[in-house]
Amino acid sequence: MKSSASSKTQPSVLENPLDKLSVILKDDLADVNALILQRMQSEVPLIPQLAGHLIAAGGKRIRPLLTLASAALFGYQGKRQHKLSACVEFIHTATLLHDDVVDDSDQRRGKSSANALFGNEAAVLVGDFLFSRSFQLMVEDGSLDVLRILSTASAVIAEGEVLQLSIANNIETTEDQYFRVIRAKTAELFAAACEVGAVVAERTPAECKAMRDYGMYLGIAFQISDDVLDYAASEKRLGKSVGDDFKEGKMTLPVIHALAKANGAEKEFWSRCLAELQQKDGDLQEAFAILKKHNALESALAEARKYAGLGIKALESLPAHPLRQHLTDLIVFAVERDY
Amino acid sequence: MKSSASSKTQPSVLENPLDKLSVILKDDLADVNALILQRMQSEVPLIPQLAGHLIAAGGKRIRPLLTLASAALFGYQGKRQHKLSACVEFIHTATLLHDDVVDDSDQRRGKSSANALFGNEAAVLVGDFLFSRSFQLMVEDGSLDVLRILSTASAVIAEGEVLQLSIANNIETTEDQYFRVIRAKTAELFAAACEVGAVVAERTPAECKAMRDYGMYLGIAFQISDDVLDYAASEKRLGKSVGDDFKEGKMTLPVIHALAKANGAEKEFWSRCLAELQQKDGDLQEAFAILKKHNALESALAEARKYAGLGIKALESLPAHPLRQHLTDLIVFAVERDY
Repeated sequence: MKSSASSKTQPSVLENPLDKLSVILKDDLADVNALILQRMQSEVPLIPQLAGHLIAAGGKRIRPLLTLASAALFGYQGKRQHKLSACVEFIHTATLLHDDVVDDSDQRRGKSSANALFGNEAAVLVGDFLFSRSFQLMVEDGSLDVLRILSTASAVIAEGEVLQLSIANNIETTEDQYFRVIRAKTAELFAAACEVGAVVAERTPAECKAMRDYGMYLGIAFQISDDVLDYAASEKRLGKSVGDDFKEGKMTLPVIHALAKANGAEKEFWSRCLAELQQKDGDLQEAFAILKKHNALESALAEARKYAGLGIKALESLPAHPLRQHLTDLIVFAVERDY
Repeated sequence: MKSSASSKTQPSVLENPLDKLSVILKDDLADVNALILQRMQSEVPLIPQLAGHLIAAGGKRIRPLLTLASAALFGYQGKRQHKLSACVEFIHTATLLHDDVVDDSDQRRGKSSANALFGNEAAVLVGDFLFSRSFQLMVEDGSLDVLRILSTASAVIAEGEVLQLSIANNIETTEDQYFRVIRAKTAELFAAACEVGAVVAERTPAECKAMRDYGMYLGIAFQISDDVLDYAASEKRLGKSVGDDFKEGKMTLPVIHALAKANGAEKEFWSRCLAELQQKDGDLQEAFAILKKHNALESALAEARKYAGLGIKALESLPAHPLRQHLTDLIVFAVERDY
């Protein structure tokens, strides 16, 4: 389905605009990484051990990069964005730790998950520590606007996680519920990360809002694409395998689209696999075939592309700056990537 | 061991100074309770259901009462302490939810625990929500001093919880480690609750510090007494049974004192019961007998009384006010209660 990407000659890893952003913002990012390492320390050794396991495993640092790129795009010359990027990453890391406890995950970013290695108890408590530490960093920064944005984001994320749990394994899940969940649990922190960069640069409310909107649309597009790739990735993705969502019975947009067109036998299939979690060999292939039959991966991706378009439009209202193009590339990549 | 309390004619429930504080501060407390109910609401029904289960179960609201009493003692006439008392209670409730997940508890305050009823996943996520909501309330209040105090308290609490987990079921636990844990996981929030009341009343740094010290000493004295009562309570305590800590293998001050004087057989006994958790009928009675033999409950209580004395001294530096006597009574009660 993504033959256009795979037919290019360059390896796809070079095409990821996050890598370009990481190079352009490498000095900022080095400061953020140093701050993250420094501020996850504690006299209680288990805290840096466990936090370090996850934080050192890396990931792309997409959220801190959004804050850095946003501040830079607006010409901000100070250093506040470094501490606030670390805040955003701490909130994200705390969420991942608690997510893995909730999902009882064994794997995260291709390594054993923190809860599998250190136990659920430690993962919960170190998550709490990182979350608190994040607020301490914000208080050091001293902006009530930033505190408002990030405390609201945290509450919205938690609400989204609870909503997701409430509707888990329910094949009656509506498209509206799906969007409420992904806005809250994924897009809200992308939006906040972008907005914070504009706020430290002391931009107008309209500009802060446009930057926030970009982050929100990027998060939505990114999450839909991720949910499509769970069925259709061309290769093994970073720390994830094809079919993880199916195995857990997650109600994602492709499935919701396919269910809307499902015949009786298909409804029974989805119900058995995703609600009752009674799966057997060949079910993932069968799921893929049903999704193809109803064009459900393409129709979900079309939604993602719609949000990517809205994100690009939001960027167009912002000052001309080379970073604007990279952020445009990023939202296009979010939906057109094949891994 | 606490015959003085039980020989009085009044039922002990009337002797609890918290009940007197609740009457004196009843209008404030009603506002706080209304705020708690209002601000734990969410469009996601599972959040108020789960939070309400724990918050409605009550408890004595000791931490909000400390904030209210502190503000009133300093003659503060405004309303800010209401919202901040709700913050303190939300942080405490989030901690309890995560604690019960960590301990895998079935009971809390005499009812089924939230994790037992709603699942560990929901308890983790609703804890996160309450924690975030607490920070949103602080941001609404708008004081960076308060935000600093409570974000630091949250980080210290989480560190203390991780430390406790790191040394769990280790009979080599030192008295110093024990005090580090109870300062962090219990006393820090008592201290912060008291300090916040002084801060909203805009008192001098010395007065804020004295009020904070009172809270810290109250918390330490309260926790030691609680740990003694786990072996020696005269009756069933609110939501707790005698022997809970023993059953979980918790290393509390009486046990640490008894281990310091233990002979070989006793060391083996504690190791089998608390480290290996190989317990059989009669072990709790045997533990009690060993604690009595070494006077370990009395020597632990003597430590609690020392901290109560320090707390009373801290109060003496504060302005004369009827509430000062009630706070003195409270710290005396914390160590002399028999339930």
